[in-house]
Amino acid sequence: MPYTPPVRDYAFLLRDLLELERYANLPAFADASMDVVDQILQEAGRFTGEVLAPLNSVGDKEGCHWAADNSVTTPKGFKEAYRQLVDGGWPGLGSDPAYGGQGLPHVVNLAFSEMSSAANMAFSMYPGLTHGAYSAIKVGGSDAQKDLYLPKLGSFQWGGTMNLTESHCGTDLGLLRTKAVPQGDGTYKISGQKIWISGGEQDLTENIVHLVLARIEGAPMGTRGISLFIVPKFIPDADGNPGVRNSVKCLGLEEKMGIHGNATCVIAHEEATGWLIGEENRGLSIMFVMMNEARLGVGMQGIAQAEAAYQAAAEFAKDRLQGRSLTGPKNPDGPADPIIVHPDIRRMLMDARAIVEGGRAFLAWTALHGDLATASPDEATRQKGHDYMALMTPVLKGFLTDRGFTVCSDAMQVHGGSGFTEHFPVSQYLRDCRIALIYEGTNGIQALDLVGRKLAADGGRGVMGFFAELDAFVDANADDEMKPFTEPLGKAKAELQEATMWLMQNGLANPDNAGAASTDYLHLFGLTALAYMWAMMAKTAQAKIAAGESDPIYAGKLAVARYYMARVLPETSGRLAKLKTGAETLMALPAEAF
Amino acid sequence: MPYTPPVRDYAFLLRDLLELERYANLPAFADASMDVVDQILQEAGRFTGEVLAPLNSVGDKEGCHWAADNSVTTPKGFKEAYRQLVDGGWPGLGSDPAYGGQGLPHVVNLAFSEMSSAANMAFSMYPGLTHGAYSAIKVGGSDAQKDLYLPKLGSFQWGGTMNLTESHCGTDLGLLRTKAVPQGDGTYKISGQKIWISGGEQDLTENIVHLVLARIEGAPMGTRGISLFIVPKFIPDADGNPGVRNSVKCLGLEEKMGIHGNATCVIAHEEATGWLIGEENRGLSIMFVMMNEARLGVGMQGIAQAEAAYQAAAEFAKDRLQGRSLTGPKNPDGPADPIIVHPDIRRMLMDARAIVEGGRAFLAWTALHGDLATASPDEATRQKGHDYMALMTPVLKGFLTDRGFTVCSDAMQVHGGSGFTEHFPVSQYLRDCRIALIYEGTNGIQALDLVGRKLAADGGRGVMGFFAELDAFVDANADDEMKPFTEPLGKAKAELQEATMWLMQNGLANPDNAGAASTDYLHLFGLTALAYMWAMMAKTAQAKIAAGESDPIYAGKLAVARYYMARVLPETSGRLAKLKTGAETLMALPAEAF
Repeated sequence: MPYTPPVRDYAFLLRDLLELERYANLPAFADASMDVVDQILQEAGRFTGEVLAPLNSVGDKEGCHWAADNSVTTPKGFKEAYRQLVDGGWPGLGSDPAYGGQGLPHVVNLAFSEMSSAANMAFSMYPGLTHGAYSAIKVGGSDAQKDLYLPKLGSFQWGGTMNLTESHCGTDLGLLRTKAVPQGDGTYKISGQKIWISGGEQDLTENIVHLVLARIEGAPMGTRGISLFIVPKFIPDADGNPGVRNSVKCLGLEEKMGIHGNATCVIAHEEATGWLIGEENRGLSIMFVMMNEARLGVGMQGIAQAEAAYQAAAEFAKDRLQGRSLTGPKNPDGPADPIIVHPDIRRMLMDARAIVEGGRAFLAWTALHGDLATASPDEATRQKGHDYMALMTPVLKGFLTDRGFTVCSDAMQVHGGSGFTEHFPVSQYLRDCRIALIYEGTNGIQALDLVGRKLAADGGRGVMGFFAELDAFVDANADDEMKPFTEPLGKAKAELQEATMWLMQNGLANPDNAGAASTDYLHLFGLTALAYMWAMMAKTAQAKIAAGESDPIYAGKLAVARYYMARVLPETSGRLAKLKTGAETLMALPAEAF
Repeated sequence: MPYTPPVRDYAFLLRDLLELERYANLPAFADASMDVVDQILQEAGRFTGEVLAPLNSVGDKEGCHWAADNSVTTPKGFKEAYRQLVDGGWPGLGSDPAYGGQGLPHVVNLAFSEMSSAANMAFSMYPGLTHGAYSAIKVGGSDAQKDLYLPKLGSFQWGGTMNLTESHCGTDLGLLRTKAVPQGDGTYKISGQKIWISGGEQDLTENIVHLVLARIEGAPMGTRGISLFIVPKFIPDADGNPGVRNSVKCLGLEEKMGIHGNATCVIAHEEATGWLIGEENRGLSIMFVMMNEARLGVGMQGIAQAEAAYQAAAEFAKDRLQGRSLTGPKNPDGPADPIIVHPDIRRMLMDARAIVEGGRAFLAWTALHGDLATASPDEATRQKGHDYMALMTPVLKGFLTDRGFTVCSDAMQVHGGSGFTEHFPVSQYLRDCRIALIYEGTNGIQALDLVGRKLAADGGRGVMGFFAELDAFVDANADDEMKPFTEPLGKAKAELQEATMWLMQNGLANPDNAGAASTDYLHLFGLTALAYMWAMMAKTAQAKIAAGESDPIYAGKLAVARYYMARVLPETSGRLAKLKTGAETLMALPAEAF
């Protein structure tokens, strides 16, 4: 029951839907011809399917082991797979060639990221966080810091971590207590305890670069007194190699519901030597570079686990013989029909396709905008890219992980009792996926970020631009063939716009109205965005079929697009009705009544 | 972070909402005066909270152990707790006094069942299945079988199991292969392997009575050739005590995502001696006595886990200081506000209350109808009781477990990262709860049972009676005070009726339409039923408040009722819209496209 990486679907997205070759004239896309992309997809599929996927269950069952010398051992096989990962240059696909990366567009890198996360989420988090550390130093570090750390992190020879959370503060980083004392030589002594540090200790890399939030002695309380530090496990020597052991250590591992193969560490900094990144007290803004990148990655994880779970469910549904079709036997020579004949099984599989393929398109479409935000020669395109990246990040993170988890749960349901046993892979997908709704800001925080910050940013330019784009698409595709897709899309867009207006009018009067509406609004937004993706995919598929293409993927896209409009999108009206009732019923009870 | 049994809420339901004392003149209710009931609730709360709850995490972490001699050891403390359970007469609250029970109405027993399930789901399944075996023998067994087994099962001195599933058949029992060969002396030799047998082996009771589905040699294939047998682990001797060891044994335990404290066994019958219950080839109908009882119990489990998870979340939300209220500090002297000030946290807690308290009322209301189905002197009341029990069983099982699981997941979300660690109890609630959506017929099977059998039964008498009851309630409560509740209830009822009509018209023309609509229909039904419960609870609370009662429970019921109408019920319209699109988009793709 192996995971099959969605190579064909990514080729559809990159070649047919997003038409990557349109950008061949841009330097950033120069190395991303479809021939090269096809080859990368094939190889990524092979590597993740053959090397990472077989270790997924091993990691879940074995977990990581902490020893009294503060070392951590990753599950059997992880070390060798990590070596192959680094040797293949995989995690650096999207990184700067100046620092060991391959400089490909992020939208191409997305394909590899999803495949490796679906194949082995716990494993793929090690390079994922390293890439985050790389990005933060690239944005905020001095030239000397970049020269010293980026080649090691960009090549994934060293690992990277995010040291944010303390036991009394996660979301509210303003409360953090880890201290930094300047030593007068440009270094600081960092002291404090951090929890939930993914990959905080491991045996995969020769060094680990911790990016640590701490408060410099005397700095103001709250978020305006937080600085960001580099705290390497081994302090680099004059040649840039791991030198003196720093006083940072792992005190233990967290027992968790899932992602057992990833070491979730308690990390103690005991007057560890650290180097300031960027300015004093401005650490959060750099950390948010990592955070935003991580949030997009987490949205992707939701879809990745859902894809893997869907595949397991589809295979089970085609194999398992049980009962007969309501419309007469479909496997008359067998003892029973495969359960895929039952409409309620189809419902769960089609829901999965609608969310996974629609969500993947949404991720890729946004990632392309992200690439164009820097790569485009056109100012308006760059601005739109920035606007969309900011606006869509909380939607991608919150909506795709909420829905991805539901897909995993439905995939378990398709399995019946088998799904609840650890003999089948779906329990692990469900358990692993669950963290994606929580980390890098819970989905409730994403919803607040969306309604509280992103909607109003630049006078609402991002969301207004998105509405205008939807209107233009609906208007341009009012023909009979596209109407079944653009009509429901137009209706959903109108509901989303109504909700947006409601928020503007009522959120200012009483901020609790915005908080009370936030999660329903985020889902209304996500449902509308996926309707747009499915309408665009339907259009692309229609064009391909009209041009004589016979690959069944196009008929499949049309069928799932129709399903999405009929069976997923109608949820929007209930979301709108709920959010418009405001905060009153929700806040009516005193806290002590709970 | 202990679980607090909902003693107060059950007193509200039994005394205020269902007014149990109205039935004091019926013999079956004679021992259930509210004084006695109050005492039972208090004691049940004490026993489940103090004895069972502390073992819940132990059971999860330790699990059951199988040994090569085919024995199974339950987690530490289970044996002693089981002894106390039996000594207290708890599991027999609702059983016949002739066989060791206390003969109380099932609606009273429900309170204890929920509390023990919430306190320790894995533990409470042992007596739960024993009660099922008791019921099946009581309904289908001969007088001799009743005399021999019921005192032992009714007192819970012996355990009971359901041996249905085989590796190739679960839902489709017609495929089962376990063989029964008549020996000419009234006994049969039973051979075959059963899987997923909860409590199939354990160290809690001196004997285990397996109820086994098997096919008598030469019987027809399919469901019409299945008989039900008693296969005791130790064959009772002349005095009715455990005698010769039967050749039935546990070959191993299943590794599962949750309910680790319950032994899920592979059971081999190797020419085991069995006794036929009832007639040859009519075993399924008796097994369905167990099954229906079990389904109601599973619906209750969904609510029980949700209650426990809600309590953990509410406590966490009141304790955890993080961030500030959007409307200004609520804990200005502290470093931050408790997270319960945030509307999105309230949303999850209020959703939980709406589902748990509404679902509990729905369970109790149905259980009372079940009691009246036999206890009432009035023919019409008895018939209504039977109709409602049959109609509501799939709704209670499917809707309350689906929603209960969502409540558990939201409760984890309230915990943030802490919830994903096994240091907090909510991961166990989520993992344990998940099986309730699957066993005793997956929720998809419940939905099919509802639309395929229950709606049409007796010419639709049950559902028509329910609609008439809703109409009468809405008409009788159209005053200004009740309108905020009966108006949305009336709207939901109209949508449910429209869906029912659509099913009648379109389900016959194409049965796939019924299958395609089934899950949305079940949720539409459940949402409407809970709207009725909340409207009734609001009316009761209003009356109590008007009468000068100052207990905050009444204001709480009104607040949650308003929340339910504003924030939960609006989902119905999307459900209706989806189901009316029929099977077409859902069945469009060929099986090989998945």
